[in-house]
Amino acid sequence: VKTIRVRTKPPYAVAIGEDALSQLPAAIDRLRPSKVFVITSPRVRDFWGKELGRHVPANWIEVADGEQHKTLPTLERITRELVKQGADRKSVVVAFGGGVIGDMAGFAAATYMRGIPVVQVPTTLLAQVDAAIGGKTGVNLPEGKNLVGAFHQPRAVIADTRVLETLPPREFRAGLFEVIKSGAIADARLFSTLERERDKVLARDMGVLESVIAAAVQVKARIVAADEHEGDLRRILNFGHTVGHALEAESNYRQFLHGEAVAWGMIAAAEIGVNSGVMRAEDAERLIDLIIEYGPLPAVSAKPRRILMLIQSDKKTMRGVPHFVLTPKIGAAKVVSGIASPVVRAAVEGICQR
Amino acid sequence: VKTIRVRTKPPYAVAIGEDALSQLPAAIDRLRPSKVFVITSPRVRDFWGKELGRHVPANWIEVADGEQHKTLPTLERITRELVKQGADRKSVVVAFGGGVIGDMAGFAAATYMRGIPVVQVPTTLLAQVDAAIGGKTGVNLPEGKNLVGAFHQPRAVIADTRVLETLPPREFRAGLFEVIKSGAIADARLFSTLERERDKVLARDMGVLESVIAAAVQVKARIVAADEHEGDLRRILNFGHTVGHALEAESNYRQFLHGEAVAWGMIAAAEIGVNSGVMRAEDAERLIDLIIEYGPLPAVSAKPRRILMLIQSDKKTMRGVPHFVLTPKIGAAKVVSGIASPVVRAAVEGICQR
Repeated sequence: VKTIRVRTKPPYAVAIGEDALSQLPAAIDRLRPSKVFVITSPRVRDFWGKELGRHVPANWIEVADGEQHKTLPTLERITRELVKQGADRKSVVVAFGGGVIGDMAGFAAATYMRGIPVVQVPTTLLAQVDAAIGGKTGVNLPEGKNLVGAFHQPRAVIADTRVLETLPPREFRAGLFEVIKSGAIADARLFSTLERERDKVLARDMGVLESVIAAAVQVKARIVAADEHEGDLRRILNFGHTVGHALEAESNYRQFLHGEAVAWGMIAAAEIGVNSGVMRAEDAERLIDLIIEYGPLPAVSAKPRRILMLIQSDKKTMRGVPHFVLTPKIGAAKVVSGIASPVVRAAVEGICQR
Repeated sequence: VKTIRVRTKPPYAVAIGEDALSQLPAAIDRLRPSKVFVITSPRVRDFWGKELGRHVPANWIEVADGEQHKTLPTLERITRELVKQGADRKSVVVAFGGGVIGDMAGFAAATYMRGIPVVQVPTTLLAQVDAAIGGKTGVNLPEGKNLVGAFHQPRAVIADTRVLETLPPREFRAGLFEVIKSGAIADARLFSTLERERDKVLARDMGVLESVIAAAVQVKARIVAADEHEGDLRRILNFGHTVGHALEAESNYRQFLHGEAVAWGMIAAAEIGVNSGVMRAEDAERLIDLIIEYGPLPAVSAKPRRILMLIQSDKKTMRGVPHFVLTPKIGAAKVVSGIASPVVRAAVEGICQR
């Protein structure tokens, strides 16, 4: 089991590897909770509930998984359930599931009695390398994704790689796109490993996987610690997300998994990067090739005009100007505003035609 | 206009007095907002909307006032309205109303895109001396009050005493009970002023009122700065609130104004103080007399047993043990746990029989 420290205030540890779950009891005991509440989905509980229960006696709260359930009414359900089951200010929430569960359980912990501790136990690759780390929590509105939420750092993250074995292949690949993102924006070596070890990664070779996940977590940990509340630095983590979020919103969060939408977003960002003179064509090609190799991706069926409209209403749009994260080269990223509209339009049309 | 600084991180100023509203434009300009959103109730907008509009061009969002509307569905309405009207991360919320509006608008600002700045412009006495200062925001659940929320300090507070002129007498008196609370827990001199100047205070003499409000704000500012996230020190602000919240919950937030419920709670706390040997009988009598003098209070019609049950499910109950704030003498307070059940029961029965 590898341990990576995230140096926020307070700092916390991410445990990564086979049997990382065995470190959960110690992580929870340190918080001296009055009660422990595991918030999870029926599916995760079916597969791994017994295993978690062996480690920690807890109260359980089940919620439906899926972006369409990541809403304020679900937050109300969770928090009412916490009251009914006797949660108080000294209680601890364990978020046990993928990104959606982690975001909702994290937001419930952030706001229940104005904040109780949360331990993230991510069960998807996406959540292990991204969502569970960094303290972003929240829910969607019909108007867009993650529009209501809070920064609430977990007190510990337990990423047990065994749980990835039961992950559907499509979801596993969706998580790998976020790993590609980490390499693209901040770790050229991780990017090369993903190019070289593609077959082992896709076969879920536990050894390669642990080191690849650890590298991606390290990227996120470093950026989050330097910028806890999403100032400029942290925004590079949104590489691929401007267009990605628009694709998700357009299809009502149903057509794409988050990682898939981000993958399309990275392809669009690569094209914007080249056409705005920020990125060399050969680096863009390497990036697009790697994404395609970890595919297939569901085709983009939306009208370009509709996607462009949604980009305008994105959270990352400030004072009416959309901002894009671009990668000047593999392993480096920066935020760019003032991209000419035709360049954005061409990139969006490009992914619609692929 | 008096100015009191609240030394949180970042610190902010509370402006108190006639025409304090004229300081709003400068307070907002300092934040360099993309847009300004005033969240208010129809009634406050009717009385004071034009006056505020003269100072600040803004988008308006109206929500129904009253504890029964301080819910997650209303939060959803507000945040969706923010999206529709084009609020982004650089937008600023102005909370323009009483405690309920301040709590909801503050919580909306705390969670919209994971947090945008809020300026509190309280229009009730209660909100001016208490709710608008200190960063507590949130909504109720059917199970209890303020169970979901966040700490989100305002960037400025503008307490214009002119708006108190249109306050219904009952609401004005309800606010005075919180001023009595401030005196009782931390300012013996303020307490004496309230005893001595009762007639002028009740006649809303602007001079006396300004100094009394400033003293109460000073108490809150000092405590909040020393304890931003409600550790032990800040809990003394909850004097009268353990029983008070139970009374409000029992009557579904309809029978009592918050200040009235706190007044009953302070009477109960005085009796608990005496019967547990923490408070001298003559100090308790002074406190109870002052509360009665600023009355009348609506009678408590609930069954004592029901109130006792609700005390058990209060946020301030930790590991099953209710905590009470008691005043060893006028102007000093401490948190006490382990009060014997019969002592609590006797105090609750006492207020039911008054």
